[in-house]
Amino acid sequence: MYDRIQRFSLEELTEIHDASIHLLETVGIRFDDDEAVDLFKLHGFKTNGKTVFFTEKNIRRALDTAPSHFKLIARDITKNVDIGGDDFALAPGYGASFVSSNGHPRRYATLADYQKFCQLVQTSDVINMNGFLMVSPRDVPAKTAHLEMLYSNIVYCDKPFMASPLSREAARDAINLLAIMWGGLEELKKMTVTASLITPLSPFRYTTEMAGSMIELARHNQACVLGALLMAGSSGPTNLAGMLAQQNAEILAGVALTQLANPGAPVIVGGTPTILDMRTGCLAMGSPEVVKLTSATIQLAKFYNLPARAGCSNTDAHLPDAQAGFESALTLMTAIRNGTNFVLHAAGILGSYAAMSFEKFLIDEELCRMVIESLKPIIIDKESIDTDFIEEVGIGGDYLAQTKTLEQCRTAFFLPNLVNL
Amino acid sequence: MYDRIQRFSLEELTEIHDASIHLLETVGIRFDDDEAVDLFKLHGFKTNGKTVFFTEKNIRRALDTAPSHFKLIARDITKNVDIGGDDFALAPGYGASFVSSNGHPRRYATLADYQKFCQLVQTSDVINMNGFLMVSPRDVPAKTAHLEMLYSNIVYCDKPFMASPLSREAARDAINLLAIMWGGLEELKKMTVTASLITPLSPFRYTTEMAGSMIELARHNQACVLGALLMAGSSGPTNLAGMLAQQNAEILAGVALTQLANPGAPVIVGGTPTILDMRTGCLAMGSPEVVKLTSATIQLAKFYNLPARAGCSNTDAHLPDAQAGFESALTLMTAIRNGTNFVLHAAGILGSYAAMSFEKFLIDEELCRMVIESLKPIIIDKESIDTDFIEEVGIGGDYLAQTKTLEQCRTAFFLPNLVNL
Repeated sequence: MYDRIQRFSLEELTEIHDASIHLLETVGIRFDDDEAVDLFKLHGFKTNGKTVFFTEKNIRRALDTAPSHFKLIARDITKNVDIGGDDFALAPGYGASFVSSNGHPRRYATLADYQKFCQLVQTSDVINMNGFLMVSPRDVPAKTAHLEMLYSNIVYCDKPFMASPLSREAARDAINLLAIMWGGLEELKKMTVTASLITPLSPFRYTTEMAGSMIELARHNQACVLGALLMAGSSGPTNLAGMLAQQNAEILAGVALTQLANPGAPVIVGGTPTILDMRTGCLAMGSPEVVKLTSATIQLAKFYNLPARAGCSNTDAHLPDAQAGFESALTLMTAIRNGTNFVLHAAGILGSYAAMSFEKFLIDEELCRMVIESLKPIIIDKESIDTDFIEEVGIGGDYLAQTKTLEQCRTAFFLPNLVNL
Repeated sequence: MYDRIQRFSLEELTEIHDASIHLLETVGIRFDDDEAVDLFKLHGFKTNGKTVFFTEKNIRRALDTAPSHFKLIARDITKNVDIGGDDFALAPGYGASFVSSNGHPRRYATLADYQKFCQLVQTSDVINMNGFLMVSPRDVPAKTAHLEMLYSNIVYCDKPFMASPLSREAARDAINLLAIMWGGLEELKKMTVTASLITPLSPFRYTTEMAGSMIELARHNQACVLGALLMAGSSGPTNLAGMLAQQNAEILAGVALTQLANPGAPVIVGGTPTILDMRTGCLAMGSPEVVKLTSATIQLAKFYNLPARAGCSNTDAHLPDAQAGFESALTLMTAIRNGTNFVLHAAGILGSYAAMSFEKFLIDEELCRMVIESLKPIIIDKESIDTDFIEEVGIGGDYLAQTKTLEQCRTAFFLPNLVNL
């Protein structure tokens, strides 16, 4: 089929891969975590202080054990979510400090807001997993906020959820909570019930928080969502080709660490590569470059036969307006159409990650439903075409008056929940 | 590349084609125009009163002479627009009765509104051709409104435009005006300077206005945009496969008439197939079925190697809100990505065709720019990846402080005109 979006050739994907390997060999990745560096040393990686260097062979070995498909188990097992291939998760927005809500100016988020978002996920017919840090609650101590959020995830929602990767200790806390739910640490290790967001500090660095969390989560068979957040022009080069090579190097290094910690531990790879608005220094989330990079990043994940992550429904708009609508639609449609397996920020996010909005959550749910519906195939065969019926109605006829139309009127079409007609 | 949108197989396209031919053979198409029926008779078509029947051979012959690519000549020849293959036109909204504008309730449109839209097209960096009947002016006599609109098209804008197909006489008036501009009727016949919207009255009928216009325009080498407007559940069956077959039959009959009138006359084929909202009886323009049908319709046009038409940026929203944003984005992105060659309603339309909005025009322009930019490829080679530069910045480095970033800061990224960052 004709398609105007860029489709990388095997040569182009290999060119990016080779550049990533070159960067991993020459620049390396700094891991600010002693155990991570020790683990690399133990497996014969070349290191220099906290910097670890990777060869093609090291990366190939990691790619050999990382699964291309896995299942996220939910407390209600009818809500398990498959990740990989044709299957994908839609998770809500992540990391917002503020809540934006009709009639209220932007305000700091509370734990009650967090819990409301848990309830919105629980009652959603399309958002199939719960997040973490959907908003950052300001009314609970920072030290225990992750426990409050995890507890809320468990009590307000029985879908799979994201766990706390905010520090090694926070990851351990999550694992201990999960162990209580799932019958002990050994039982937990047999299944994947969470996926947690691991983000390199670009360029070329994993903090002790991220590296430590990665090791803890991988060891307990919990999925790491390796999502680089490169901003072209600040944490990455302005040329998008170079940006893809750097992002890919950082992600491959993360995959390698998870597979050393626990060969076969599930990972999801990708990121939300963005650009810097050069006039203001602001993050430009809704830009067309993000659409391009989203498509490119998914193609790279597929090249490695790993589940692909994309960040979607993003916008630089501060209100759920037309800009929010079309920017969200462009990334979401592209990512889902091109085969993403994990959509972060699928619902609720506004203002370049600054705020979560209840209204936008509902709007994005409708958008998600519509994107999914629009990708369902039309069955084409003699029976579905049914020329007999069309002949019967004939020239100038009225289909609305036909019994067949009446019979199909409740099921034939997608029924929107929110949009007006 | 992995793609979740439906890609019809050659077998499926042939199944639709065969069903269309079957319908053309058995039901036929009614042409309420004597000259059209006479023309078919003259070429040996089977007729019954005003109903014309078509064979596979009749259709094949028409498809043999219809061009796959042509050029729309503008008064300013630097603004010529190629149609076909990779090339496409973006035309504004069409057929609205109302104007919706900030601070004003929906009101009937005037000629001054029409002229403002002409000016918006003229100054647009992305809408590359002017429309016709963008709004229907209520302050001029209906009998001469087409002359006022055509005259406005000519004096306010030097891009190619759509001509008046409202009746045979209106088409002739347009041709006479064009002849004045282009040096006489014989000169005009040597080039295509307009594309006009021809719509069957589904099911299976062309009115005398449409059939007469088609003959006049084709004879003078002006393009006909054959756009069926089937509504599943009212003018077409609820099953989308049947709808595609019926739409295709109606369009192929139109192509045949243009090619009898003037073999080689340019046509653009497709339509804006929609569904009926079964709860309200309203047209549902922004529905996911429209996205599916848009993709399917373009694939059928490509199957026939003809320029493809799609109606995009459509929405059922009555204000330029989030719904308007995402509904417009879903059809526009799908159509342009999948290879449309003529986008009607690319800017300004609201409320299921009811109104044109100046605000939505500007929003849609930004959306068009962003879709086009997001489909531009990233060059992937050693030079563009530039690992030397990435190595130089290194672990924890800052790209913003680099000379190379400064050098590229004005040109590296798409600069939005309207959206906030």
